[in-house]
Amino acid sequence: MKIDRRRLEQSIEELGRIGQTPRGGLTRLALTDEDKRGRDWMVARMREAGLSVTVDQMGNIFGQRAGEAALPPVIMGSHVDSVPTGGRYDGQLGVLCGLEVIRTLNDEQIRTRHPVTLAIFTNEEGARFQPAMIASGVMAGKIALEDAYNARDKDGIRLVDELERIGYLGAEPCVARPFRAYLELHIEQGPLLEEDGLAVGVVEGIVAIAWSRLTIHGVQDHAGPTPMRIRHDALVAAAEVVAGVRRIASEIGGDLVTTVGNLVVTPNIVNAIPGRVTLSIDMRDPRDATLDRARDRLEPIVRDACEREGVRYELEHYWRVPSTPFDRDVVNAVARAAKAAGARHRRIRSGAGHDAQYMAAIGPAGMVFVPSRDGRSHCEEEFTPIGDIDYGARTLLLAALDLAGRA
Amino acid sequence: MKIDRRRLEQSIEELGRIGQTPRGGLTRLALTDEDKRGRDWMVARMREAGLSVTVDQMGNIFGQRAGEAALPPVIMGSHVDSVPTGGRYDGQLGVLCGLEVIRTLNDEQIRTRHPVTLAIFTNEEGARFQPAMIASGVMAGKIALEDAYNARDKDGIRLVDELERIGYLGAEPCVARPFRAYLELHIEQGPLLEEDGLAVGVVEGIVAIAWSRLTIHGVQDHAGPTPMRIRHDALVAAAEVVAGVRRIASEIGGDLVTTVGNLVVTPNIVNAIPGRVTLSIDMRDPRDATLDRARDRLEPIVRDACEREGVRYELEHYWRVPSTPFDRDVVNAVARAAKAAGARHRRIRSGAGHDAQYMAAIGPAGMVFVPSRDGRSHCEEEFTPIGDIDYGARTLLLAALDLAGRA
Repeated sequence: MKIDRRRLEQSIEELGRIGQTPRGGLTRLALTDEDKRGRDWMVARMREAGLSVTVDQMGNIFGQRAGEAALPPVIMGSHVDSVPTGGRYDGQLGVLCGLEVIRTLNDEQIRTRHPVTLAIFTNEEGARFQPAMIASGVMAGKIALEDAYNARDKDGIRLVDELERIGYLGAEPCVARPFRAYLELHIEQGPLLEEDGLAVGVVEGIVAIAWSRLTIHGVQDHAGPTPMRIRHDALVAAAEVVAGVRRIASEIGGDLVTTVGNLVVTPNIVNAIPGRVTLSIDMRDPRDATLDRARDRLEPIVRDACEREGVRYELEHYWRVPSTPFDRDVVNAVARAAKAAGARHRRIRSGAGHDAQYMAAIGPAGMVFVPSRDGRSHCEEEFTPIGDIDYGARTLLLAALDLAGRA
Repeated sequence: MKIDRRRLEQSIEELGRIGQTPRGGLTRLALTDEDKRGRDWMVARMREAGLSVTVDQMGNIFGQRAGEAALPPVIMGSHVDSVPTGGRYDGQLGVLCGLEVIRTLNDEQIRTRHPVTLAIFTNEEGARFQPAMIASGVMAGKIALEDAYNARDKDGIRLVDELERIGYLGAEPCVARPFRAYLELHIEQGPLLEEDGLAVGVVEGIVAIAWSRLTIHGVQDHAGPTPMRIRHDALVAAAEVVAGVRRIASEIGGDLVTTVGNLVVTPNIVNAIPGRVTLSIDMRDPRDATLDRARDRLEPIVRDACEREGVRYELEHYWRVPSTPFDRDVVNAVARAAKAAGARHRRIRSGAGHDAQYMAAIGPAGMVFVPSRDGRSHCEEEFTPIGDIDYGARTLLLAALDLAGRA
């Protein structure tokens, strides 16, 4: 059984034009006008494919292809939101490969025992509203609906108001329901598959992730007549923290990764000593215990940097997801499918969070990875060759069919 | 001869309400609606005081009180624009004390030989359009009118378009004209007068100032699945530069001050490795040679930091004003006036740039400083006691009268 490579390429091309950047990337932040247009395009394709479409309270979109029996569905899911100046593969490739699976089942007139559902989750990236994966988090009961609704973007706009504005504040309760399996195809976003010359990664689980937010309160003053001896510069302390966060990763080593991705200076003008800096700390490791050690090292780094500069600070650990192993049966089904698809593959662990992480908390979940050129993602240069995508989509198709069962 | 302290206090209060922040500071960026309202208020007061008001091509405002003879004027000048969340004394105190001097001369029916002119310069702060002191720079022939007109704020809006929009694109040529003396009263913006318990600083000159801009090009990538070994993080390199810029000041010592006040990260989200960072470097010293040494140290710091992280950079030294000694006769006139006013005073050097710096290039200039509480400025907490302001205004009055000559 083959997927239609040309049709899939064309979908990637068409959806990729919504929110496209001049350099061929994508800026389609959650619940913006671009996100709405991407959603509308997907809903139209889902209806064309005969799916019955519903939208829940968090704006998650579900398109169901009925099964032979009233059984829990096999869900194939991902997202259509992007980071700013991101790429056209992160998220939407999973959604489009899921669509291609549905279309192939239709073309081949295959009936399944379990229904097969295509899912699009709201605000997976966390680029506009935090935390990331907020909508699958609500579904899994890990984030309160109320808190998710009140998440605000940097301009103070509430998530629920944007859901309503773009017409995706659905009525279906956003709660856990039984499913046969959750499958998510995604780009690896790392270099391992490409380095090994492989087309498919059979994902065994997702690393633990911890996000923290640091606010440093210095003393805003004039950059000229203020002698060095009386300065309390929030940015000087912040720079030490950035260096220290990098040092944590080099000292602990292994698979630990640490990043300061967001840093904002106030008042942020040439001739004023920075009075306030806020910054983010993102740390990830396959083992929860290693992440605990990393966090233990963070605290004294921040304290010492701020003491040296004589500035106050608040350090808030506001989001943590534990290391998530995927369901053994689903992982094995994906491995069998990769083999049957003829894809060169290996088992791999995801360094990025995905909606699969929350879905794994409420049912059997697994993922299919395809390679990222140069290991790059969250950038305009993000790219996966169509040959690898073809293998990935076939793996997804065969795994879904295996798990849903032929009628 | 006394100035009217209550009237002066009331002016500070009234003008301070235009662009006032909730915490009693001031946000009145150059050529915004707030700046226009501040200008309009000043022009109304200048006309009430009988001054003949003109506006030049850079939006500089001049109000002249005629002298006995057609001689070059004594100019008292400063500015009404502020930094974001700045204070209500930086700039406008000089303008209001100048107004108070004019009013006092009127009350006392004093005629002077030279005219006495009150001047308000456009965009002194450089917070919205760069460089700072752009309008006195054009007048002194140091900045081309064309370049000043094309200066853009962070939203890409041109200075000349904003001048026109707020109705201050005057017809008078913005060129050097002879003047008897230029006097500027300003807050010290440093701690020295307060530490010594003095009311007035007789300013001998202004330090040399160098502004540079650094752009670091890293590789934007996902903060999760990208192993530490393949990262090229623009912010990690930038943090080293921030620490290095601080180190330059501690190593060279003396009066050198170094500041990174502006730093912008792209894409600036929690889960993306920073692909680009731009930052400013502000360095100042009384001696030009010391500033040269500081700049010589900056280059290897930037190069080493960027080499270690494997990132590209551009370092641009885009603005430099040399150390500026003020005219000996004007400085002596200010010293005599401070003494005659009964003010406890000392000679002092300015660590901040002022329009007096460019005016000193085309004629005899000097300044009067009053203390800044805790040495603080460019912040909402900026404060000078009215008793010290009183001494400063009297010093300005007596120096202006001395230099203009009684008719």
